[in-house]
Amino acid sequence: MESEFVPWLRNRVPSHPRLDLGIGDDAAVLSLPSQHCVVTSDMLMDGVDFVLSECDPRRVGRKALAVNLSDLAAMAAEPVAAIVSIAVPNDAAVDLPKAIYEGLLELAAEFGVALAGGDTNIWRHPLAISVTAIGEPTAGGVLKRSGARAGDAILATGEFGGSILGRHFDFTPRVREALTLHERYNLHAAMDVSDGLSLDLSRLAGESGCGAVIDGSAVPISDDARRLAEERPDAGSPLDHALSDGEDFELILAVDSASASQVLADQSIGVPVTKIGEFVVPQGLWIRSDKGDRQPLTPRGYEH
Amino acid sequence: MESEFVPWLRNRVPSHPRLDLGIGDDAAVLSLPSQHCVVTSDMLMDGVDFVLSECDPRRVGRKALAVNLSDLAAMAAEPVAAIVSIAVPNDAAVDLPKAIYEGLLELAAEFGVALAGGDTNIWRHPLAISVTAIGEPTAGGVLKRSGARAGDAILATGEFGGSILGRHFDFTPRVREALTLHERYNLHAAMDVSDGLSLDLSRLAGESGCGAVIDGSAVPISDDARRLAEERPDAGSPLDHALSDGEDFELILAVDSASASQVLADQSIGVPVTKIGEFVVPQGLWIRSDKGDRQPLTPRGYEH
Repeated sequence: MESEFVPWLRNRVPSHPRLDLGIGDDAAVLSLPSQHCVVTSDMLMDGVDFVLSECDPRRVGRKALAVNLSDLAAMAAEPVAAIVSIAVPNDAAVDLPKAIYEGLLELAAEFGVALAGGDTNIWRHPLAISVTAIGEPTAGGVLKRSGARAGDAILATGEFGGSILGRHFDFTPRVREALTLHERYNLHAAMDVSDGLSLDLSRLAGESGCGAVIDGSAVPISDDARRLAEERPDAGSPLDHALSDGEDFELILAVDSASASQVLADQSIGVPVTKIGEFVVPQGLWIRSDKGDRQPLTPRGYEH
Repeated sequence: MESEFVPWLRNRVPSHPRLDLGIGDDAAVLSLPSQHCVVTSDMLMDGVDFVLSECDPRRVGRKALAVNLSDLAAMAAEPVAAIVSIAVPNDAAVDLPKAIYEGLLELAAEFGVALAGGDTNIWRHPLAISVTAIGEPTAGGVLKRSGARAGDAILATGEFGGSILGRHFDFTPRVREALTLHERYNLHAAMDVSDGLSLDLSRLAGESGCGAVIDGSAVPISDDARRLAEERPDAGSPLDHALSDGEDFELILAVDSASASQVLADQSIGVPVTKIGEFVVPQGLWIRSDKGDRQPLTPRGYEH
């Protein structure tokens, strides 16, 4: 497969101003004038993160890059390049890796990401694809999980729950939103929601040494979450889905309350930003009802 | 598994002067003052690159990093960091990823490589591990495959053939050797031999737009190649093994003939350097006998 695939890939991958040396050597060479780089890696596997027999492989390639761009967004880092390793089942035609790369390259073009290299292998088992994304911090530095302070507002982009209906493939990584907000406002911390809003929020709070209170009625619930709850009422309410489904790939942000008011009044970044609660001194996670009473909330989501 | 494994990993991974932010956030942050970075990625799979049931998993982790360091060596780049993605079979105990990381971390310590992050997943299929290594060029810039010129000597480090007997796990990536030679001498091109000496040499020559002639009697043949040839005479001579076995992870270098004489006279880099032939104008690959007659040689090795 490599003898046909690699020449196709070398021809298909566009040049990029940051890519001094691309596919075809022992390694790629990138220009990274900022002197710091931000690196993240995620592996997606057939049967876990997608079901190859039930989806267009272009969506697999797109998702493999998108989850990594979402991680860069959570650091408020600007994406520069990606490098791909893939294990392809031996009974697949060369069309499979080509379609995967087509999906990946389309998203790479949308976000100005250089494809710096690829390692394509064949084996007797299902598809696995690992992408490493490299970005660079902007002038404001990176946003860490550990920067939230008690009193900060919890802001969230977009809507939550029910991504399994398709959004886990087609979400837009919040790169532009993160860069814009980080440039305009004083953000303290950020994280992308991959495993579930309540679980990931509890992790962000834990890394910051504080707790979090969620306003139950403020959580933006997606239509997909409502649909899931209608179809299977025993599997939880729309809010339950929003709090625990995972793969929303929206951002949660810790922002001091004055800046939070500005962000909420702004709403010009193309996706709604909502205040869903605040960080508090005691460690733990709570949910607050409309009436103001607060109950402990067990973090739920996808545990790897 | 992640709930037990990730805290273990965060505790186990040492700090590193280049690692501004390590495991535990959405991404890692590295210092890369050189403004250029060299990136490579390789995935190893159970049943293809190792047989997990027949080997110590520490050797798998070591090899997963070592093959990437070998790629950086081929560019004469200094290793800085590595990031790991791994898919672990669901019936494995947490001891498996721990052992894999122990092997990887031991080699990382030997080469001063920061472990910048890891994505650990579970699925119902065999082990796959992908490592991305990041390095930086030295003052002399990187060595590409495309720099060989007709008339250059072909130099090789170490010995070839029979790595399947164990050396494919325990080889030393030629990082130090590449950096030393690149600093002292005028090298034109380099490549590491992963798929087979004749196949990889033909690729290097092809990228450089020239051909190559190998002196059959000059190729350094490992004892492992001799042992394989003795055990199975029908599977080829020791030289056949040296020319085609693959996974030697030695370097082949293109060096102008004056510099080559200096390199050959030097021999102080800890591993023997041998002249095995020269690059020529017409494209193609030939082997020359003791008597000086030249025959076309079909490049052979591992085709992915």
